[in-house]
Formats: sequence, C-alpha cells, structure tokens
Amino acid sequence: MDTISFDEWKKIEMKVGKIMKVERVPDTDKLYKLQVDIGVAEPIQIVTSLVPYYKEEELQDRKIVVLVNLEPAKFAGETSEGMLLCAENEDEDKCVLLSVEKDIEPGTPIT
Amino acid sequence: MDTISFDEWKKIEMKVGKIMKVERVPDTDKLYKLQVDIGVAEPIQIVTSLVPYYKEEELQDRKIVVLVNLEPAKFAGETSEGMLLCAENEDEDKCVLLSVEKDIEPGTPIT
Repeated sequence: MDTISFDEWKKIEMKVGKIMKVERVPDTDKLYKLQVDIGVAEPIQIVTSLVPYYKEEELQDRKIVVLVNLEPAKFAGETSEGMLLCAENEDEDKCVLLSVEKDIEPGTPIT
Repeated sequence: MDTISFDEWKKIEMKVGKIMKVERVPDTDKLYKLQVDIGVAEPIQIVTSLVPYYKEEELQDRKIVVLVNLEPAKFAGETSEGMLLCAENEDEDKCVLLSVEKDIEPGTPIT
C-alpha cells in the first residue's frame, strides 16, 4: 500500500449530497442517472451502476457522500459530474452506500 | 475547485473500520486515541479530536470510514496511523461521522 501525503489528501473534495431525482439510463442494465444536491445552486448529475443494489425508491431523498471534484466522465452517453461512494465487497457482490450517522445539510464538506 | 484525475483518486485508500477501544489522550482537551479494526491482523491506532462531539460510549463498536494510507502523524506524542472521516460544518460547530447505511465487515474497501 502506497502512502499519500496530507497535501495529496487535501486535493480530494468530498461533500454530503442529497439525491433529488432518480432515473434509469435507457438501454443499460445497471445505470442510474441521479440529480444530487451538493449545496450549490443547481444539482449535479451523477451516473452510477447501483441498479443491482438499490431500488429507485431507496435512493430518492437519501443522503450520500459524493466525490465532487473528479474530472467529468461519460457513461452510455450521459455525463457524470461526480462519484458517489460505497463500501464494496466484490467477492460477496455487496455494495453499501456511505452515509452520515446523523442528519446534516447537503454541501457539508467531508474532512 | 481544482479537478482531480481518476489516477489521483485511486491513490486514496479508504476502508470501513470498527472502533474496538476508546481512550482519552491524557493532558489534552479534545483528543481520543482509538484502536480501529480495518480487517487486518492488528487494529490500527487513530488519534482524533472528537471529544467535543462524541462520548466514549457512542464511539465504542461503531462502524466508521477510515483513510488508511495517509502518512502517519503524531499528536500529543501519540502516533495516528489513519484518519477517520466526518462531515464538518465549522460555522455551526457540527461534526458528524461518516458511516455505512447497511452493516458490512471491517476492511471493506470504499470505492
């Protein structure tokens, strides 16, 4: 395991997000397209392969943890402006969203 | 906000941890010294300034999210071998631990 410096860590920006809208990405098996409030004027769009693990109604209004300064990427033609964080056990095919243990506002920075 | 590349993100190693032991660091106001199971043979020690926000019994056995490959640092003479992650609102003096929304084993990687 390679060690990182505190400066490398400080480049990473993560925030609390709240999922405002959930849609399936058409013609894909696993992809949702989410609109996520991260405490700024407009929600950001996040594309994520959570279909096997979470139903739409389980995601709606959920507080999550979002990496907000990753360079945007395209999946199935849809732009993803961030990445939500999960604990993922590939051997057992488990994927569990990170959350906050008490309620706190969208946009709150992770430190 | 500066964008990071996927390669910069992949350098960051975070895991689910479980707090096995909680002690105050003597002669400090804010510091706990925690022994945290991150799924390897021995727990790692984390020093954290959570005394104003969490009681010892609220931390004991709690599942948390740990940055595990930060270079070790010393606080009040105690070595910290990782950092636990919080959502922190400095204006309101609030600090809320990150967690997993369903139970999952210590050591599970965050992706």
